[in-house]
Amino acid sequence: MRIALCQLNYHIGDFEQNTAKIIAALNKAKADGAELAVFAELAVCGYPPRDFLEFDDFIARCNAAVNEIAKACVGIAAVVGSPVKNTTGTGKSLFNAALLLEEGKIIHTAHKALLPSYDIFDEYRYFEVGREFSVVEWKGKKIALTVCEDLWQVKGSTMYDVTPMEHLSALKPNLIINIAASPFDVNHAEERKEVLSWNAKHYKVPIIYANHTGAQTELIFDGGSMFVSKNGTILNELPYFEEAQETVDAFPKSDEVLVSTIEPIPPIASIHQALVLGIRDYFGKMGFKSALFGLSGGIDSAVVAVLAAEALGKENVKAILMPSEFSSDHSVDDAVQLANNLGIAYEIIPIKNSYEAMLKTLSPVFGDLPFSLAEENIQARTRGVILMGISNKLGGIVLNTSNKSELAVGYGTLYGDMNGGLSVIGDLYKTQVYALADQLNIEREIIPQNTITKAPSAELRPGQKDSDSLPDYDILDKLIFQYVENRLGPKELLALGFDEALVKRVLKMINTNEYKRHQAPPILRVSAKAFGMGRRLPIVGKYLG
Amino acid sequence: MRIALCQLNYHIGDFEQNTAKIIAALNKAKADGAELAVFAELAVCGYPPRDFLEFDDFIARCNAAVNEIAKACVGIAAVVGSPVKNTTGTGKSLFNAALLLEEGKIIHTAHKALLPSYDIFDEYRYFEVGREFSVVEWKGKKIALTVCEDLWQVKGSTMYDVTPMEHLSALKPNLIINIAASPFDVNHAEERKEVLSWNAKHYKVPIIYANHTGAQTELIFDGGSMFVSKNGTILNELPYFEEAQETVDAFPKSDEVLVSTIEPIPPIASIHQALVLGIRDYFGKMGFKSALFGLSGGIDSAVVAVLAAEALGKENVKAILMPSEFSSDHSVDDAVQLANNLGIAYEIIPIKNSYEAMLKTLSPVFGDLPFSLAEENIQARTRGVILMGISNKLGGIVLNTSNKSELAVGYGTLYGDMNGGLSVIGDLYKTQVYALADQLNIEREIIPQNTITKAPSAELRPGQKDSDSLPDYDILDKLIFQYVENRLGPKELLALGFDEALVKRVLKMINTNEYKRHQAPPILRVSAKAFGMGRRLPIVGKYLG
Repeated sequence: MRIALCQLNYHIGDFEQNTAKIIAALNKAKADGAELAVFAELAVCGYPPRDFLEFDDFIARCNAAVNEIAKACVGIAAVVGSPVKNTTGTGKSLFNAALLLEEGKIIHTAHKALLPSYDIFDEYRYFEVGREFSVVEWKGKKIALTVCEDLWQVKGSTMYDVTPMEHLSALKPNLIINIAASPFDVNHAEERKEVLSWNAKHYKVPIIYANHTGAQTELIFDGGSMFVSKNGTILNELPYFEEAQETVDAFPKSDEVLVSTIEPIPPIASIHQALVLGIRDYFGKMGFKSALFGLSGGIDSAVVAVLAAEALGKENVKAILMPSEFSSDHSVDDAVQLANNLGIAYEIIPIKNSYEAMLKTLSPVFGDLPFSLAEENIQARTRGVILMGISNKLGGIVLNTSNKSELAVGYGTLYGDMNGGLSVIGDLYKTQVYALADQLNIEREIIPQNTITKAPSAELRPGQKDSDSLPDYDILDKLIFQYVENRLGPKELLALGFDEALVKRVLKMINTNEYKRHQAPPILRVSAKAFGMGRRLPIVGKYLG
Repeated sequence: MRIALCQLNYHIGDFEQNTAKIIAALNKAKADGAELAVFAELAVCGYPPRDFLEFDDFIARCNAAVNEIAKACVGIAAVVGSPVKNTTGTGKSLFNAALLLEEGKIIHTAHKALLPSYDIFDEYRYFEVGREFSVVEWKGKKIALTVCEDLWQVKGSTMYDVTPMEHLSALKPNLIINIAASPFDVNHAEERKEVLSWNAKHYKVPIIYANHTGAQTELIFDGGSMFVSKNGTILNELPYFEEAQETVDAFPKSDEVLVSTIEPIPPIASIHQALVLGIRDYFGKMGFKSALFGLSGGIDSAVVAVLAAEALGKENVKAILMPSEFSSDHSVDDAVQLANNLGIAYEIIPIKNSYEAMLKTLSPVFGDLPFSLAEENIQARTRGVILMGISNKLGGIVLNTSNKSELAVGYGTLYGDMNGGLSVIGDLYKTQVYALADQLNIEREIIPQNTITKAPSAELRPGQKDSDSLPDYDILDKLIFQYVENRLGPKELLALGFDEALVKRVLKMINTNEYKRHQAPPILRVSAKAFGMGRRLPIVGKYLG
């Protein structure tokens, strides 16, 4: 049985384009001799559709798309994901379904049983739990359709009170098809392979796995669709971070022949690819072409510049240099050097006059009070107004250049350097930003060495260094990671050897700055716990604050 | 059996204060002759604790609080809500529990069975579904403990696959205790009374109902705790929007004697009270004392000014008037008049010099391009920088003055007039803002009549009126309501009589401005569907865009 793995980049709510892509892939699969083409979870509407699922009209459009795809299934069948109405008379109004389509009809339906409702997932908000398990007999084989999480209760995990594969395995399927919407994080590709391999081996059944690729605002889908033999060996693996399609023999004579597997991508290289895709798809799906950003001569904006130029093309990227009286000479030099290395346009717009006019305007209120955080923030906000002004006047979307360490402790100015349509590196710790800079320089020096080696500074007052107000990033990043990503409490952090006063201070900074992150741009997610839709804390929460 | 209804204002994560409040209320109840004191859902940690629930340390502190309260239960028992560990070995790691405490011990536990996971609720993100139903025999009565939503599958509703009251009713309880975290919306108090009354009558059992009061960022808990007779009559009802405590006779001789019921509060008056509480608690719980905001002479900022002065005290509120060349004369006059009527401080800070300096700074980029949205936004952002500058220099939190109509269609400037720590009227349509202004003026003219009668304008270019770029608010607000709150699609909206071109235009405005709302301040929620945590849409979504 020849089955086409179809890994496409869908756009949430763009039914016309999604349907056209699916039908084109279906026709290509047919031409390749496939009998069945497998698409991703909720392929017809894109993932995650979020509260669009609450609109009857949206569901009607999903149904119409399914019907159109079914009609295109002539001489070939398809498995696609779509929300379907729950007609059982009880529970949430929808199921998250895998549908087998053939010759204009839905010939089999499976409802997702395990509904992830953690981190970025909200599926129980919309869907009822599927409670019936069945296989479909098709072309002499028993096939079980499953949806993503349905295969993830493995190796003694007990998050759900049912393990779909136990029920399905009892029905003796010859093949498991799993359609997924499994977003990237830096460790997830390996985890995914382990889980699928474990299932195949444990239940002695081959698995066809089709994932999304492409980014939907914060979430980046890396693809990595695959075919796993019943021995747990990955025989076919589709490329990462791009659309791809491959027809596999689902019942090969020998199942240990690796046909098209992929070398594992090193973590920092996968982050690089993920962020480029994240930028490209945000702009593409929003209908934007060009980007601008403040280029300070520091490491954060340098890394964003390189990623943006790669994602959008150097001709679509503009750097704005906005030096102040507190900027060091090398800042402008380093920024110009980088812009020249990249071949991107830049403008130098000193903020002195605007900043001073703002201070003069405020002088009746500020009086003789000493220079403080207020003046620092006015510099950052003046730059924010300049960037947004250029965006409004000439077009182009402002990219935010904050990193995860800053966002965690609130070391940034709301409505200033926190501005932007998209945060590119907001899920990278400062130490990871350095690692990524080295990676981007691996073939030639794009980011000037001085940008990498100088001590980080916001340059908002004379001689300022990040280390004046923050612990060393080596320690800070580890502490943030343990608190934010591993959710360790104070006692557990002390047990890991962190200093007590430091733990208290940093946890307080993290928790009392929730209000800033609430108004941050969407952040491209590359870790298992990013600031954004997957981390939800109360602003007025008093815990450890 | 004398039972104390205890309606308290908790603070999320402030274990020390929550525990102290509960114990103080417990002691007062004992002094009142109560045998049992009933507190709200998740009272020990406040509601909603959100992802704090993922921290083991947070759960340990909840347990410690429960133990401390149990120890204080000497000669009196208590029902309190707390997260508890799920020890069944399967499912999510926590239950949302109602605990009966007496003489240092937990003598009975009930797990919430219906976990709301819609709008602002995310309970299935954290909690496992309670599947066991039991009553506790206590002082000769069979009592069933339930948690909030457990009573809300009524009158043929089928959202959940189980109806806890059917199971509990079979156990013949003499009394139902329902501990709740039921936030205010303008129609919710009536709905809540109907649901409780329906349950009591349908299952022929009296109900003790204890809710939260007080605000937690967006969510405002109105209280309205009550005692409902088995005939469905509300015999006791606690006041709204304040802490209160009352001891009731749970098994009165005659059950038709209304003891302490409350006159229904008219909708606009309840919105008024809710917003005042929302402001007061945001400041109180964040540890802030004073507020500032831009006062334009228009209706939105006028209403915010009155609410802020009422919530925080006129001495803690400062209005900043920031006229430009496009401001009409009456704008400053109306704003000054309002400030004087309220007795609040104000500053007049013209933006001309800063605005012009900004334009001059940008002139190398702007060149000879005509005046456009860019210059309008620079005015709004200059004001934003001024407000934040004053906040940073002198203290005081900036209140946002955007309304729901503007937020819906994106008629506002990101990092400009969309700034603020809290959006006060962001869940009020423009037409509701006018209604609230009339309400605030009911005893004497606080808001100048001219502010109410003049045509709304952003005053960002000569002679500008809202009606230049927006439909009449009478129509616009109805359309937004039907789309955002009732989730009607284009066909359904046409069937209601809305103009086709208007529907297309407004829906597109709503959907393409998701990116702006993503960065908006938290909005005090007074409707069943507010922008904010209860409405989650994809930014890159293409639907109707």
